[in-house]
This record gives sequence, C-alpha cells and structure tokens, in this order.
Amino acid sequence: MINQLVAKIRKTNAPIVVGLDPMMNYIPKEICSKVFAEMGETLEAAAEAAWQFNKGIIDATFDLIPAIKPQIAMYEQFGLEGLKVFQKTCAYAKEKGLVVIGDIKRGDIGSTSAAYAEAHLGKVQIGNKRYSVFNEDFATVNPYFGTDGVQPFLDVCKEEKKGLFILVKTSNPSSGEFQDKLVDGKPLYELVGEQVAKWGEAHMGETYSYIGAVVGATYPEMGKVLRKLMPKTYILVPGYGAQGGKAQDLVHYFHKDGLGAIVNSSRGIIAAYKNEKYALFGEEHYADAARQAVIDMITDINEALSK
Amino acid sequence: MINQLVAKIRKTNAPIVVGLDPMMNYIPKEICSKVFAEMGETLEAAAEAAWQFNKGIIDATFDLIPAIKPQIAMYEQFGLEGLKVFQKTCAYAKEKGLVVIGDIKRGDIGSTSAAYAEAHLGKVQIGNKRYSVFNEDFATVNPYFGTDGVQPFLDVCKEEKKGLFILVKTSNPSSGEFQDKLVDGKPLYELVGEQVAKWGEAHMGETYSYIGAVVGATYPEMGKVLRKLMPKTYILVPGYGAQGGKAQDLVHYFHKDGLGAIVNSSRGIIAAYKNEKYALFGEEHYADAARQAVIDMITDINEALSK
Repeated sequence: MINQLVAKIRKTNAPIVVGLDPMMNYIPKEICSKVFAEMGETLEAAAEAAWQFNKGIIDATFDLIPAIKPQIAMYEQFGLEGLKVFQKTCAYAKEKGLVVIGDIKRGDIGSTSAAYAEAHLGKVQIGNKRYSVFNEDFATVNPYFGTDGVQPFLDVCKEEKKGLFILVKTSNPSSGEFQDKLVDGKPLYELVGEQVAKWGEAHMGETYSYIGAVVGATYPEMGKVLRKLMPKTYILVPGYGAQGGKAQDLVHYFHKDGLGAIVNSSRGIIAAYKNEKYALFGEEHYADAARQAVIDMITDINEALSK
Repeated sequence: MINQLVAKIRKTNAPIVVGLDPMMNYIPKEICSKVFAEMGETLEAAAEAAWQFNKGIIDATFDLIPAIKPQIAMYEQFGLEGLKVFQKTCAYAKEKGLVVIGDIKRGDIGSTSAAYAEAHLGKVQIGNKRYSVFNEDFATVNPYFGTDGVQPFLDVCKEEKKGLFILVKTSNPSSGEFQDKLVDGKPLYELVGEQVAKWGEAHMGETYSYIGAVVGATYPEMGKVLRKLMPKTYILVPGYGAQGGKAQDLVHYFHKDGLGAIVNSSRGIIAAYKNEKYALFGEEHYADAARQAVIDMITDINEALSK
C-alpha cells in the first residue's frame, strides 16, 4: 500500500492528506438544520450530517489529493451510527481512488493489538468465513507497549499489504512531557524513531517501508533529525496550518526528491469556509472553500520544497 | 465513582475485576453453533455469541465481584454489531450493580481526546440535546501525549464523577522497551507514575483519587515502587493468572488495609472451563467454572494479603 500511496502522491504532485474530522461545529448549519428537521437532534442525525459533510469534501477534492485521514474519535463520539459513517467514509474514499489512513491510534498488549489489527486492516475469522470490518489502508498506532504490542499490526500489514504510521513525536503542545525525556542523552522520540525504522526494515515496499511514523509539524527541528534517523520511513505530518506548522518548517521532513513525507491538514481544509481567507465562498459552499484550501496548501508546500 | 468502586470492593471483600474479553476461541462451541445455525457465520452472529457468553459470566459472578472490565478491541473486531454488544454489556453490568471499567486505552491530542472522553465517559452534545454514548464508569487512557492529551479526560471525569486508569507500566513482555528507559537515572514509568499522581491530586474522591493507574502484575518490584510513589492512586493490575502474575507478588500493590489495588483476570476467569483445574464443569457449564475461578481468585489474593 505504501507503493500505491507514493504513486498517488507523485501523480497528484500533492504530498498532503485531508483529515476528515467532522466535529459538529465544523459542519455547516444548513446541513445540520436539514438533518435535525428530518431526524431530530439525535446521534443518528449527527452521524448523517457528518456523512453529508464528508461526502461534500471528498467529491470536491478527490481529484487533487492522494489520501484522506479520518480521525475515528470524531465518529466514535456519535456511537454506532458514527462508526457506520466512518466505515462508509472509508469505503467511499476508496471508490474515489483515495488511500485511507485510519487515524485510530490503537495499541495494547499482543492479543488485544491483534484484535485491533484484524478489525482495522485485516480480516476477522468467524467460523469458516473471514470479514473485513473497517478496512482502512493504513492505521496509526501508539508505541507505548513496545514490540509485542506492535507486532500483530506488522503481521497483518505484511499479510494484507497494508501499512502503519506509528507515533514518534506528536504535534500537541505537551508532547514533550514524556516524548522529549532524555535517555542516555537522547530524547525518547529518537529511540522510538529508531525502533520504528527497525520494525520497518522487515516490511519494505519498493523504496519506502510500509511502516511509517507520525512526526508533528510543530517540531521542525525534531522532524529534521528524525528524517535522517529513519531514511526509509514515510512520515505522516500532522499539525500544519491550524495547529501552527508552516510549510517552510516542513522541508526537512522530506527527502530531496520531494518524497518521504505526507502532510495532514484537517480543520484548515474542512472548515476553510470559517477562515476569513475563504469567507467569500459562504458556508453553503464549504466544499468549494475546502477545494481552494487544498489547492493553496499544495502550492504552499510545493513552493517551500522547490526552494 | 472511585468511592463507589472502593465501597463495592469492601462489600464484596474482592479486590478483583473480571475482564470480559469475548474472543471467539473462549466462547463455548455450543453457543457458537447455535447462533451460527440461526444467523450464519456472520459478524452479527459472533457479536450475539459474545453477548450470550458475557451475560452468562455476569449472571454467574455479579454477586461476588465489584466490577467488570470489557476490552473494547474484542468488540470492535466484530464491527458495529460488536460495539453494540459492548454497550449492551456495559449497561447490563450496571443493572446488576457492577462498576464498569472500559478498557479502551484511548489517548490523542486535546480536541481528539475530548471526543473520546465525551463518547466513553461523558455526554455528546447534538443541537440542544446531550447523549451518553458508551457510558462506562472508568476508562483506561494512554499517556504518551502528555498533559494536554489527558486533560479532556480529567475534565469529563470531574463533571461526570467518573474515573480513569492511566497506563503507567503495562503487563506485556516488551513493555520495558520504552517504559523502563532511564531518564536521569529514573525509569520512564516512574515519571509517568509521578505525573499520574499529580493529575490525581486535583481529582480526589474520599480517600483515593479517581485518577488511577495501570501497573502490570508481571512486574512486582516495579509495582512496589509505584505504590509508594502514588499513595492516593488506585492501581488497576492486569496480568494476574494467565499472563503469569501470582498473588504473593501482588501484595505490595496494596496498602496495608487491603485497599489501593484491583486485580484483573480475563482468560483465567472467562475461559476457566478450558483449564484442567475446572475441566470437570464441562464446556456447557462455562459460567459455573467462571464462578468457581472467581471464588478461587478472591481466596488466593486475600490469603496473600492476610499474610
């Protein structure tokens, strides 16, 4: 799947991914009012609003981008109906030719990680039958448990030709609280990065490993170091835009050929219509605003890369 | 909720929790054959089998124990139908007077943790209405993101009078890979433990904080140290029994009054019928075997504590 992702990035010339995180306050009032009128102010209605919102964004951007990254928490919050929309969004994005990165950040002891890996990337055995359940292409994974918590994900990825992005250095303000602690003079995130590179060695695609890493855009100096420590590792970069990461800061997350990293934007794209810069589109044209924000983000990053 | 948990532990004299992790190979063939005959070898049938299995265990043990701990991965693997059974299991256990510890190990950047916290412990706002979605009493949380990833869980717990168990030292063999790394001569899990105690200070119940910690039974020396570092923190102890933790090793996870820790067993209870010791019960009496295993576990731990 890493090969497909790289091919899609080359084809679109867009090293970006759109984070589909349908929080209620991002969804235009028009969509909400309509579904609430039909279905009441229910979890089912909220999930339906999220679906309509997502479909609008995908339809308006799928030809420009290689991938989407739905954050499962934003669906889980609406319960079973929300998770149904998570599945539907993943399936619809795939129909449109997009790679789907499930931002699930699961991770547990081995037997439990195996259940998550089968549910999200592999197949679940029921009697003599096997079912794909959530069926993402990539999943994000938390490394706190160490190798035996990650291994079941690695195994399923090998079998299913899927991939991972393992948390190394997260984009949030307090990520340093544990991740930056020095171990023998080296920050913990570097140790995790080295381990991710090691896990990745046994799981190589054509040029890159299908075991990638998450490194936040908000820590560019660390991104630079991690890029060197993990040369074959694709880096998923959250934190661009709304969280504060800037294009010029991200250059060192990439290799010289413009590959090696894929930058996520969620709020900055899907709620672009709320940004003064795109206000002229108007709330009802939120999807057109998102398309323009995608175009601007691609330009922004490619300009920085070409310098 | 920590006060209720402590009261329930006192009342039952059972510092234990039953892990309801309905993996397919734990569910008696009789249950599976019956649901497969009715519903085919489907995800829905697997979820129904999990439900019947869980109900049997709860009905056979609820009068002996203070709490259950369903591992959400074992439900997520069956998709939406599985998660419906997770909800149903939590609700049924509460009806039976049990405290429900949702073993979800979620954790992310602030806005995402907020969505998880609302979904699992709090209420989700839809228009002018608010809904409880999964409605556990406690949830397990991964600390890798640091304070701002944990804060939304703390906030929701304060508002809803719920609680957390935050991963400090996990029970799996490779947990030391990152958790044991020395930071200024002190292992990372101690730093995390100190932080959990600090988070807990602002969230006190009567005697204990409602912000607890997870410390694996498989590392008793570390448990001893952590007990001292986190005096007001309730410790959830996985890894007893099937994973190798023994009662005499667990004494130091407790305070002298026999409180301060709650020991989980999953496989050892729910699949007791597969253990030679309980084989006489027979597969069809799996619930009676579970009840006997609960009685034996309580005796085992209380004997160790009384020494």
